[in-house]
Amino acid sequence: MRLSVVGFGFIGKSLVKAIKRKIDFLRELDRDFKVVGVFDSKGGVLSSSGLNLERLSIIEALPQYGEEYTNNLSVLDALREGAIDIMVEATPTNIDTGEPGLTYIREALKSGVNVVTANKGPLVLSYWELMELASKRRVQLLHEATVAAALPIFSLYKRCLQADRIQRISGILNGTTNYILSKMYFEGASFELALKEAQERGYAERDPSYDIDGIDAACKLVILGNAILGKKFTFKDVKRIGIRRVTPEAMALAKKSGYAIKLVGVVDDKPEVSPKMVPITHPLCVHGNLNAVHFETDLAGGVTIVGYGAGKETVSALLNDIIAILKSA
Amino acid sequence: MRLSVVGFGFIGKSLVKAIKRKIDFLRELDRDFKVVGVFDSKGGVLSSSGLNLERLSIIEALPQYGEEYTNNLSVLDALREGAIDIMVEATPTNIDTGEPGLTYIREALKSGVNVVTANKGPLVLSYWELMELASKRRVQLLHEATVAAALPIFSLYKRCLQADRIQRISGILNGTTNYILSKMYFEGASFELALKEAQERGYAERDPSYDIDGIDAACKLVILGNAILGKKFTFKDVKRIGIRRVTPEAMALAKKSGYAIKLVGVVDDKPEVSPKMVPITHPLCVHGNLNAVHFETDLAGGVTIVGYGAGKETVSALLNDIIAILKSA
Repeated sequence: MRLSVVGFGFIGKSLVKAIKRKIDFLRELDRDFKVVGVFDSKGGVLSSSGLNLERLSIIEALPQYGEEYTNNLSVLDALREGAIDIMVEATPTNIDTGEPGLTYIREALKSGVNVVTANKGPLVLSYWELMELASKRRVQLLHEATVAAALPIFSLYKRCLQADRIQRISGILNGTTNYILSKMYFEGASFELALKEAQERGYAERDPSYDIDGIDAACKLVILGNAILGKKFTFKDVKRIGIRRVTPEAMALAKKSGYAIKLVGVVDDKPEVSPKMVPITHPLCVHGNLNAVHFETDLAGGVTIVGYGAGKETVSALLNDIIAILKSA
Repeated sequence: MRLSVVGFGFIGKSLVKAIKRKIDFLRELDRDFKVVGVFDSKGGVLSSSGLNLERLSIIEALPQYGEEYTNNLSVLDALREGAIDIMVEATPTNIDTGEPGLTYIREALKSGVNVVTANKGPLVLSYWELMELASKRRVQLLHEATVAAALPIFSLYKRCLQADRIQRISGILNGTTNYILSKMYFEGASFELALKEAQERGYAERDPSYDIDGIDAACKLVILGNAILGKKFTFKDVKRIGIRRVTPEAMALAKKSGYAIKLVGVVDDKPEVSPKMVPITHPLCVHGNLNAVHFETDLAGGVTIVGYGAGKETVSALLNDIIAILKSA
């Protein structure tokens, strides 16, 4: 299988490094496995005989790969040439237009190319269009990394709870807000101070609205609802209250009663993300930049999974999706 | 596929009920799926055209099924006749001899029959012998329910963390001791009082040694180590300290410092189960009769899964194994 990575930011770079580390294992599954293309926003490198993973792993920016870097070369060119079997889409998220990822994914699926994506935008906007396209072309569109990053939510549902009907999903789905709320819980910090520290540490953007107003979590609820509960949710269907109004006083009061205030997303018929009191002893009550997802099911009862919702750990989910495709080939 | 259930105790009965509820879904996967045999310790019912699931679901003891119940009929007879494709083994656990489960599993595998088991005994004693037998006969021996019951530990490892190398596993693997320790943590109860209440509620046996001396947890560590880390552990390899000596004073001191004392099993090169201080904010620190398993991996970092380690929820794991076999047929 010939793989291409679109997007050479933190996730794209981390993935290339992980592929290099795991290349023997990947070649055991598919002896023809190779990375044939990597693209950034301005161009890319493409080679049918496979790229040099060693070199790709140490460069900071893609043009440093060497003279093979071609300006204006796009993954769309590679798709048109039939040069790819799996496309990993890791461009920046845009939840208004889905671009550029949406076009890349759509074109890949239309070309009969399997897609692994870490990008919420295209799925929030066009989940069912893309899934139907994948199904029509008999290829896979896997997106484990889009919700709770390293946590295997979708494969847990598909592979480990195959007889269970999932009735409700709740989760702490945004690491930035959980970092801020944990700071408030443990240190009595004000929201403003905790946010400032999150920004200084690089956990929160200069415009933190995407995280703290629950937009990121709401996007994840749309994907969870559609992929696991079979809903036809769009972003507008999610009731959304952020954490700006959580005060140190409210947090202290909650703490005194054995609770923490957390930004909790819930998906059933009416998806909602809002600050909620969570008993400190509940498995969902995780701290720092951890994420947690809790399934309520008809057989297993409650199953909670906890782990890293961002960072280099995301490559675990991307590689698991890639391997699922290699194995089903 | 023709399925038989061996053992008609709580788990066997719960499974039959769950199969009845999910029969349409199972027949979508395999339109010839049927339950052809159920056996208790004294006899069984066997019918090549399939048993009446409605009737099986409402009876308390197998002889009540009707005159079809045959004394001294054993699953071994059914195996000899080639009447079964999947055997679900749910007889009582015996970790000294593995019997009667060990003989049933061995004979099933020798006969080329897939096995799903909830029984730790045979696996603790003969993990590698049985796995090699399964591999030689090209059938599956799945045992999701043997560790942390409803929690999908082994399928999480096999299906959701396929690129990850698991470096260490730690877990709260015994619901009875966790119930007792939680009682001590939350109510300041003494060990003796908490044990007595666990016995009154049916969580602990009259002879509670199997749970409170860590024997049950040690068995689970052997299976985890062998199945996930590829070790050749036996029961004797596990260093084992139970919870008899945990005092209310020690628990109160731990609590004051933000910890709880938990019976924690750890598997790496040196498996060990012993009471440990766990930070109350750590995902592993679950309470009541919950179980939790924490994987440390090279890519995903830490992944924790939390849920029910006993009870009717166990059928989720058994059915997931059954479905995995139906899908790979």
